[in-house]
Amino acid sequence: MSDQPRVGIVMGSDSDWPTMQAAGEACAEFDVAFEADVVSAHRMPDEMLAYGREAAGRGIQVVVAGAGGAAHLPGMLAAVTPLPVIGVPVALKYLDGMDSLLSIVQMPAGVPVATVAVGNARNAGLLAVRILAAADAGLQQRMVEFQASLRDAAHAKGQVVRDAASGARRTGF
Amino acid sequence: MSDQPRVGIVMGSDSDWPTMQAAGEACAEFDVAFEADVVSAHRMPDEMLAYGREAAGRGIQVVVAGAGGAAHLPGMLAAVTPLPVIGVPVALKYLDGMDSLLSIVQMPAGVPVATVAVGNARNAGLLAVRILAAADAGLQQRMVEFQASLRDAAHAKGQVVRDAASGARRTGF
Amino acid sequence: MSDQPRVGIVMGSDSDWPTMQAAGEACAEFDVAFEADVVSAHRMPDEMLAYGREAAGRGIQVVVAGAGGAAHLPGMLAAVTPLPVIGVPVALKYLDGMDSLLSIVQMPAGVPVATVAVGNARNAGLLAVRILAAADAGLQQRMVEFQASLRDAAHAKGQVVRDAASGARRTGF
Amino acid sequence: MSDQPRVGIVMGSDSDWPTMQAAGEACAEFDVAFEADVVSAHRMPDEMLAYGREAAGRGIQVVVAGAGGAAHLPGMLAAVTPLPVIGVPVALKYLDGMDSLLSIVQMPAGVPVATVAVGNARNAGLLAVRILAAADAGLQQRMVEFQASLRDAAHAKGQVVRDAASGARRTGF
Amino acid sequence: MSDQPRVGIVMGSDSDWPTMQAAGEACAEFDVAFEADVVSAHRMPDEMLAYGREAAGRGIQVVVAGAGGAAHLPGMLAAVTPLPVIGVPVALKYLDGMDSLLSIVQMPAGVPVATVAVGNARNAGLLAVRILAAADAGLQQRMVEFQASLRDAAHAKGQVVRDAASGARRTGF
Amino acid sequence: MSDQPRVGIVMGSDSDWPTMQAAGEACAEFDVAFEADVVSAHRMPDEMLAYGREAAGRGIQVVVAGAGGAAHLPGMLAAVTPLPVIGVPVALKYLDGMDSLLSIVQMPAGVPVATVAVGNARNAGLLAVRILAAADAGLQQRMVEFQASLRDAAHAKGQVVRDAASGARRTGF
Amino acid sequence: MSDQPRVGIVMGSDSDWPTMQAAGEACAEFDVAFEADVVSAHRMPDEMLAYGREAAGRGIQVVVAGAGGAAHLPGMLAAVTPLPVIGVPVALKYLDGMDSLLSIVQMPAGVPVATVAVGNARNAGLLAVRILAAADAGLQQRMVEFQASLRDAAHAKGQVVRDAASGARRTGF
Amino acid sequence: MSDQPRVGIVMGSDSDWPTMQAAGEACAEFDVAFEADVVSAHRMPDEMLAYGREAAGRGIQVVVAGAGGAAHLPGMLAAVTPLPVIGVPVALKYLDGMDSLLSIVQMPAGVPVATVAVGNARNAGLLAVRILAAADAGLQQRMVEFQASLRDAAHAKGQVVRDAASGARRTGF
Repeated sequence: MSDQPRVGIVMGSDSDWPTMQAAGEACAEFDVAFEADVVSAHRMPDEMLAYGREAAGRGIQVVVAGAGGAAHLPGMLAAVTPLPVIGVPVALKYLDGMDSLLSIVQMPAGVPVATVAVGNARNAGLLAVRILAAADAGLQQRMVEFQASLRDAAHAKGQVVRDAASGARRTGF
Repeated sequence: MSDQPRVGIVMGSDSDWPTMQAAGEACAEFDVAFEADVVSAHRMPDEMLAYGREAAGRGIQVVVAGAGGAAHLPGMLAAVTPLPVIGVPVALKYLDGMDSLLSIVQMPAGVPVATVAVGNARNAGLLAVRILAAADAGLQQRMVEFQASLRDAAHAKGQVVRDAASGARRTGF
Repeated sequence: MSDQPRVGIVMGSDSDWPTMQAAGEACAEFDVAFEADVVSAHRMPDEMLAYGREAAGRGIQVVVAGAGGAAHLPGMLAAVTPLPVIGVPVALKYLDGMDSLLSIVQMPAGVPVATVAVGNARNAGLLAVRILAAADAGLQQRMVEFQASLRDAAHAKGQVVRDAASGARRTGF
Repeated sequence: MSDQPRVGIVMGSDSDWPTMQAAGEACAEFDVAFEADVVSAHRMPDEMLAYGREAAGRGIQVVVAGAGGAAHLPGMLAAVTPLPVIGVPVALKYLDGMDSLLSIVQMPAGVPVATVAVGNARNAGLLAVRILAAADAGLQQRMVEFQASLRDAAHAKGQVVRDAASGARRTGF
Repeated sequence: MSDQPRVGIVMGSDSDWPTMQAAGEACAEFDVAFEADVVSAHRMPDEMLAYGREAAGRGIQVVVAGAGGAAHLPGMLAAVTPLPVIGVPVALKYLDGMDSLLSIVQMPAGVPVATVAVGNARNAGLLAVRILAAADAGLQQRMVEFQASLRDAAHAKGQVVRDAASGARRTGF
Repeated sequence: MSDQPRVGIVMGSDSDWPTMQAAGEACAEFDVAFEADVVSAHRMPDEMLAYGREAAGRGIQVVVAGAGGAAHLPGMLAAVTPLPVIGVPVALKYLDGMDSLLSIVQMPAGVPVATVAVGNARNAGLLAVRILAAADAGLQQRMVEFQASLRDAAHAKGQVVRDAASGARRTGF
Repeated sequence: MSDQPRVGIVMGSDSDWPTMQAAGEACAEFDVAFEADVVSAHRMPDEMLAYGREAAGRGIQVVVAGAGGAAHLPGMLAAVTPLPVIGVPVALKYLDGMDSLLSIVQMPAGVPVATVAVGNARNAGLLAVRILAAADAGLQQRMVEFQASLRDAAHAKGQVVRDAASGARRTGF
Repeated sequence: MSDQPRVGIVMGSDSDWPTMQAAGEACAEFDVAFEADVVSAHRMPDEMLAYGREAAGRGIQVVVAGAGGAAHLPGMLAAVTPLPVIGVPVALKYLDGMDSLLSIVQMPAGVPVATVAVGNARNAGLLAVRILAAADAGLQQRMVEFQASLRDAAHAKGQVVRDAASGARRTGF
């Protein structure tokens, strides 16, 4: 993949990296270059706004932002960039990510954030790829092939269950 | 705008149209052609899958899907198209859309849906525009201008509040 | 029991089998033949619809479907089969299965899913037996006997508590 | 339809009838005879248990029970009948039916209740028909036709949305 | 204490005993005789109703009932006894006892259950003592003394915190 | 009934009276004398504590306290009286009484509050009667008769539903 | 009161003014000068940050910020001002303000927001006065008197309830 | 720092100290003297009210109160002191602190509590410092410097993520 990052993956703290790295992995699987950084809405608001404002000019086409609790990073970035921003709710110690989810998804009219499931940074990366693929036939074809591979993997898992159930029926549970 | 729709707006029933038309309005403000239709996951699953499968080939670049309750339409479309799918949780009579939100956003790894706020179809339309703008400098510039207009409108609203507060201080509440 | 499965137990992934196998165990206790397989709504939608469409013709009389998160499998199967479909909400890492429950139970009018408790695949199996027993006097009689056995087991547990409480009163807690 | 009721529709109070009558309507559409009555778990527990115990002997094959708040009727009936019991959570003044839903669906292992969506008695009736149809090819065929009619109705709704969207595009919103 | 139990402590399964024994301990601290047993609403409904109906005649003055999930035991007992019934929501594997709480507390008009906190069987026992003490000056005096002992214990705990804070200030955290 | 109140019904504001008067009505139906007053934990804490402390000495045997939002009145009264305290969660404009319910029911070990359903002051009154009846055979007999009247009323409601369903079957819905 | 505002009341839109003006009224009752303005985190982030950064320098001592949904305004202001920031969750059309509450209160360590009840801007104003009064003996004395007036008002309300209850007892309900 | 405590940190039990000590640590970092004690609303209500009433006279300027479950301590203190009271919701075994949060934040008009995130006592301490700093330029300057240090720490964390992502890209995940 080219060195020029097309997806910017940011998070409020390095403690979010174990969750968020799956977004980068998904990009890498499609040879989509990405960058990753800590950009905290609450601890470095100027740099955060600057990141959002400069992203498009630097060649970034999609921003992925992960945050937990009163999660303001995705929405604040969406306020200052015309790029699509994908939000990943990160679950903290309490409330199972419900606070993170609502803080990210319930954006007011005018400033959308594309929200994915609690903790599901992999889907954020795959969504970024789909967005890039909307104008890139080759990448879109790879996404079609990826979806076929999901089907094949699910088929293989079916054999596991069929065998387990068959054995169970033979031997009793 | 060109007649060739680039955004496909679908919903489970015509009763969703009063909510979902705001997605079309947002597209129209940016001269992005869209189509709108009823595509029910539960009532016409074959046509639903066909819609998802054929969308990219027909020139659709982003799908917007609204649904309520056990809302399966956005996720099922995402399963059969490589396009980015935006989900709009529509609130039904009970539970205030929490069921719709969770049914749409909590997708398993591999099949992302870009979820927006409960009932906020306008943001779904704006997100579709941002996605198209990721590869379209002219459209991106228009999004930047739109964001500036939001700022101007907010400024104007500030005058309303400043006047009301000022009057209140003069006359007592 | 006959080899011809009367209950089809399906799930989105083999990782659901440890939860779902209790449905099969319940069937086996009543000598009701079942089959088990992975049928993913999101990863193999065609095969999923085909499974639903062909189930009745293959002799399946009840479908049991387990899924987690944005759980679309039970509802999508219910859309394409005239058979009763039982949904088992499987809890994922976050939200304790509330997302799975709402995604399965809140189906729109026209397409019912018979939903059981979060993670309670055993009850799904027992419900399948009750459904078959609605037209099978012998099987219904066995269900009556099973219910009597629950009563007997509860009686035995009462002795445990009575002894514990009695000992506690004698010796102090 | 025959006069012998095959589906017993019961509820805790006559105030539940406006919600629950949709279950009867669904049965009637399929010429499935039903009976309806007030059977209160909390106000007439003996009659409630007697109803449950005698239902199968009187020819009832499926029980539909609606209740709200701390909704105990479906579960208590399931405890004393081998028949499949369908529970309809009825929303009360507060909490939007979440209390009713959890009180009905979260049954312990051994005693399943087939739960449908909050307030969705129509689906309870349709589920009862599916259950009867599991052993009745003619009824199953009618369910298949009913599902086809849902598809046709959804198609017709699509025209409404297509027209509205088309008009909107022509005239501006 | 007399051998004649005045408080009946019942639960749906012996697995509830580790939670529920604290109710007995509280009674014992006040020399209030109690009995404990398994009485399952769903597995032995006749014995459950009989327990409720006969409790007052046997000299029981307060019933304490613990249950989890779709927790019907406290409410069903309240339906058949004129005695005050105290409900203890027992948390199960999922949903943290919210289902148990709502299933117990949201009783319809006419049939109250005195509900305590999730898992707080000790408070159920103490509430039973308060109820008995409403007509028993000696027991009420002991409750007053118990409340004074709570105050003393809280004072002692204050010293622990004062010391910890003081040490922390001296040495830095 | 005697003029000496045995049940004290208190609430945080006169705006709670429309909800709380049903507690008084229930007492009156059983000829149990009650008093009603505003006792605000947050606005007159001294008088609130004094009320709690003096209640038993004045002949009050049960306290019923209604409150909404961060509802502290029932728990604070329970802290200073040895009497049983019944809490009624009053729903405010937002959150449907869930805040009131949790603020009342989740009391720490040592200080129980007997909580009833959101807004169900009638049940609070009936619970107070049951508590008094625990040591009053005559009152207990009246509660038994009241429960029989609930059964009779439920029977009458059954006729309404049976007629409605029968008419519906004759004429079509 | 002096013209120099000491409390800055800001909100995301003029549609929040009907809710937020109660904060200003509370300040005015204590002769605490305030200003009110629209400062939108999402629509004018630069001005929002500037407002926060300059507030202390302009003589503002407390900031009150109201916002709804994914409510980022209070937290973002707290990130750029050393002043105490009070957050008012404003309920939107869905979810009853739970999203607003969690988005405001669940701030990460380092950046606190003083959150009050959903929609309770009056309490935000009173909290601002308490904060100013922490270093202002005269203002603190007025708060003490205000609290006494709350007590007197509660006493008066008690008479209303006592009369209503008394009349009810005399005449029957 | 001076020995005269300016912040009073109280909690319902010494078991809250491991959570609450972070409030003291934050004060200490700013050389703000604090005291810490157990003051239980439910176990020693008189001392609790006395603490609240006397706090201002003893030189306390801000009260921080932590409590869990039906958490009444912060609100009761706010009722009897004119000082700003900061509430810390402490999560107990069940419900993840949602009960604590609602019991603290949903205070009625007239008696505000400044609520922080579940378990976030550090933010309570920092909020206390901000409140004191509202009238103390030197302390306010230190808060500004503290906020700068947060920014610097976030920058450092960014390097960690940049390195990890860079390594991941080089070596594959």
